[in-house]
Amino acid sequence: MSKEITPRTTDYSQWYNDLVLKGGLADYSAVRGCMVIKPYGFALWENMRDRMDRMFKDTGHVNAYFPLFVPRTFLEKEEGHAEGFAKECAVVTHYRLKADPGRKGALIVDPESKLEEELIIRPTSETVIWNAYRDWIRSYRDLPLLINQWANVVRWEMRTRLFLRTTEFLWQEGHTAHATAEEAVEETRRMLDVYADFVENEMALPVIKGVKTANERFAGAVDTYCIEALMQDGKALQAGTSHFLGQNFSKAFDVKFLNRENRLEHVWATSWGTSTRLIGALVMAHGDDNGLVMPPRIAPLQVVIVPIHKGDEQKALIDAKVHALMSELRAMGISVKYDDSDNARPGWKFAEHELKGVPVRIALGARDLQNSVAEVARRDTGEKASVSLDGLASHVRNLLDEIQANLLHRARAYRDAHITRVDTWDEFKKVLEEKGGFVSAHWDGTGETEERIKEETKATIRCIPLDNPAEDGACIFSGKPSRERVLFAIAY
Amino acid sequence: MSKEITPRTTDYSQWYNDLVLKGGLADYSAVRGCMVIKPYGFALWENMRDRMDRMFKDTGHVNAYFPLFVPRTFLEKEEGHAEGFAKECAVVTHYRLKADPGRKGALIVDPESKLEEELIIRPTSETVIWNAYRDWIRSYRDLPLLINQWANVVRWEMRTRLFLRTTEFLWQEGHTAHATAEEAVEETRRMLDVYADFVENEMALPVIKGVKTANERFAGAVDTYCIEALMQDGKALQAGTSHFLGQNFSKAFDVKFLNRENRLEHVWATSWGTSTRLIGALVMAHGDDNGLVMPPRIAPLQVVIVPIHKGDEQKALIDAKVHALMSELRAMGISVKYDDSDNARPGWKFAEHELKGVPVRIALGARDLQNSVAEVARRDTGEKASVSLDGLASHVRNLLDEIQANLLHRARAYRDAHITRVDTWDEFKKVLEEKGGFVSAHWDGTGETEERIKEETKATIRCIPLDNPAEDGACIFSGKPSRERVLFAIAY
Repeated sequence: MSKEITPRTTDYSQWYNDLVLKGGLADYSAVRGCMVIKPYGFALWENMRDRMDRMFKDTGHVNAYFPLFVPRTFLEKEEGHAEGFAKECAVVTHYRLKADPGRKGALIVDPESKLEEELIIRPTSETVIWNAYRDWIRSYRDLPLLINQWANVVRWEMRTRLFLRTTEFLWQEGHTAHATAEEAVEETRRMLDVYADFVENEMALPVIKGVKTANERFAGAVDTYCIEALMQDGKALQAGTSHFLGQNFSKAFDVKFLNRENRLEHVWATSWGTSTRLIGALVMAHGDDNGLVMPPRIAPLQVVIVPIHKGDEQKALIDAKVHALMSELRAMGISVKYDDSDNARPGWKFAEHELKGVPVRIALGARDLQNSVAEVARRDTGEKASVSLDGLASHVRNLLDEIQANLLHRARAYRDAHITRVDTWDEFKKVLEEKGGFVSAHWDGTGETEERIKEETKATIRCIPLDNPAEDGACIFSGKPSRERVLFAIAY
Repeated sequence: MSKEITPRTTDYSQWYNDLVLKGGLADYSAVRGCMVIKPYGFALWENMRDRMDRMFKDTGHVNAYFPLFVPRTFLEKEEGHAEGFAKECAVVTHYRLKADPGRKGALIVDPESKLEEELIIRPTSETVIWNAYRDWIRSYRDLPLLINQWANVVRWEMRTRLFLRTTEFLWQEGHTAHATAEEAVEETRRMLDVYADFVENEMALPVIKGVKTANERFAGAVDTYCIEALMQDGKALQAGTSHFLGQNFSKAFDVKFLNRENRLEHVWATSWGTSTRLIGALVMAHGDDNGLVMPPRIAPLQVVIVPIHKGDEQKALIDAKVHALMSELRAMGISVKYDDSDNARPGWKFAEHELKGVPVRIALGARDLQNSVAEVARRDTGEKASVSLDGLASHVRNLLDEIQANLLHRARAYRDAHITRVDTWDEFKKVLEEKGGFVSAHWDGTGETEERIKEETKATIRCIPLDNPAEDGACIFSGKPSRERVLFAIAY
């Protein structure tokens, strides 16, 4: 069973699908646009989730769980929010099936079970959560309320891609309530930093922190902050967003609190989210033509050991050495698997572990044992080295750190080489077409210009970077004056 | 803000609701039959989930995630399954809303977005998962397949109760595939043991392991095994089920494998599940008229410390001692909170921590400090003791173990005292009416008798215990011969 991977240069999109499907991360399902997250992909998600969850708790948040269903009239309450999500909602209209009198064994929707008010499968939970907060918040003493939820959500997308854009996906959504606008903005920025920290340091993926333009804002937000990453095909990917919601939802759901001066005020809100989409980003940022490349810190499996032997006697000697090594590695908190199944040859196993992106592979043969060495291969560079068995566990631990650092370094070098400053419309188009990546350019600040640029080039403003220097210039499209550059890109 | 708890003897049902709502575990939501799991309740669920998850992984299972949606025709494929679930299905029929032309700001279902085939929100995932397994299983080498999923499910219940029976609930569902019937039965029994181990040793709730009668079997199962617990009002509660599914689903979804003899065979299946319903069981099994009582091993918070002081000087001395104690406790893996907020008096705090069921409360006052002691109160018995500060952390650690053991002991004593052997119909009815609990009685083995007994008394056969001795007797209802006793009870 060979698992051929389409090279990136041949068909980048097919290469991505090959990695996801053949790497065992996910599979298509029988339901349009929905995927199955397979055990290897889910183990990756568990590692990502657990680390993020720890970071959320360390910044004072607690988890809760709110209903899957959003009553239709809830969605209507915040106008911008309704406009943003109404067109992609899965709608529950009935609550019962019954036997089809015409076809034996078949079921039909029971028309008598029609709901008085339709229920939407949550595309996000602001409405349901702010409806609950109305009962939970009385005074400033109840604030801040710092709640996160891990959940599935549904957005009826017309064009779907495994992990990147699926009808149902898994995510976390933080929903916090504050006494002042300043505090809420601070929280919005804090969670953006948490996301950037996670994506850069755990996923080895460098990001640019910025704020969205009005056109690209979350439906119902006053300000949307984001982290933007760059994929190997030069397209950008939004890796996480954090929204300052002002008093939009507290007004829509009438959530007020008694402030320290004993006056009733509407509560200030934030929401922030990341999703299984991050797995798509990880695949596209680090993968190569041999398969997935997992960053060691979140890899489902960090080290695999393959024995190379003839006969049981050699195998027994190797086994003894391997079991001692595994104990040492596990004591260091490193996950390791001994792949000594006898239904595949070492070469096949090597290819399989490469495909799955296991950061470090150790091969141990009878002659190696005599020489007290093992062959250690690193997935990121493909380099192999003969390493002394003495101190091998420490060597592996350091190597995992080195691989993690190298992946980030490599992705950052690529990203930095793909931020291009341009000052003319021709340059702008040329860079987008020939080089891709982020294009740093002046923009006149209007939604109309932004829309026109998108129509002509497919590029959108990914963000206005947070650390943007002031710089006078002229809009590449309209020529009108501009006070700072923004980052354009074609995006996933 | 006083939080009065209705005593059990006054209104058991209201007592339960008071504990769930005022104890901060959950809240009603705007959607009929759906609840919000509040942070304190969710922290409890996280502890339960993490421990079960560890036990599943230790028995060789991995997690995955399958779609929320079940195509209507999937449900039709296994007849018994369809009959069991068709009447309580939330049905998605459309995928878009649009502006209501008649009412500004209002939304209506867009009739043009009608789905060709309706989608059911999963009430359980056998159909979706076995449809996927068809592509995943080729030969005996792919077996066993041992997969678990943590997910939300929806069953449209007419009468709902917080945690015990909600339209949407959280659960885990294991779905395994095997090469032989024997292996599948072994797996079914293994997971029943895992459930019993978890519920008894972590939740301190004794259970009876047994097998269901045909009437009470899971829709689509060959055999349903269960663990049954007893609540303080004498009603039984099914705490977990493990099903041997035979080849029902592999036949319905045409899942075959090449066996060692190179012949195609249908795969053998199991499924097993536990849910947030367990939280309802925990509340009802251990709670008292002062509130919740959390078993230490899964308590969201194990120890709370309350300072009793006048003025900042005393407070500073107490603080120093408390911080040292907290470090010691945390080093032992014990969760502890210092409740030194100054917006409530100690008495109010004591009541609040009792309501929340925190296993151990430590009060430390200025005079205590002089005497080098603290007041330690245990939630299970209400006993208070003056304990030397020297070695206090070890004392607390032992006390937590003692409380865990005592809760199990107490619940077991109650349960054992409420298993009543009866031999006549009059006795049977009298015990059910006056004493409650499990009634051990002879039954003629027919579904008709079982149904009649249920109609007349509301009691169902909870299970045929696994360790049941053979015993000749006469059915309490029909007088026909019987070879063993079964356990009846009125159940949640």
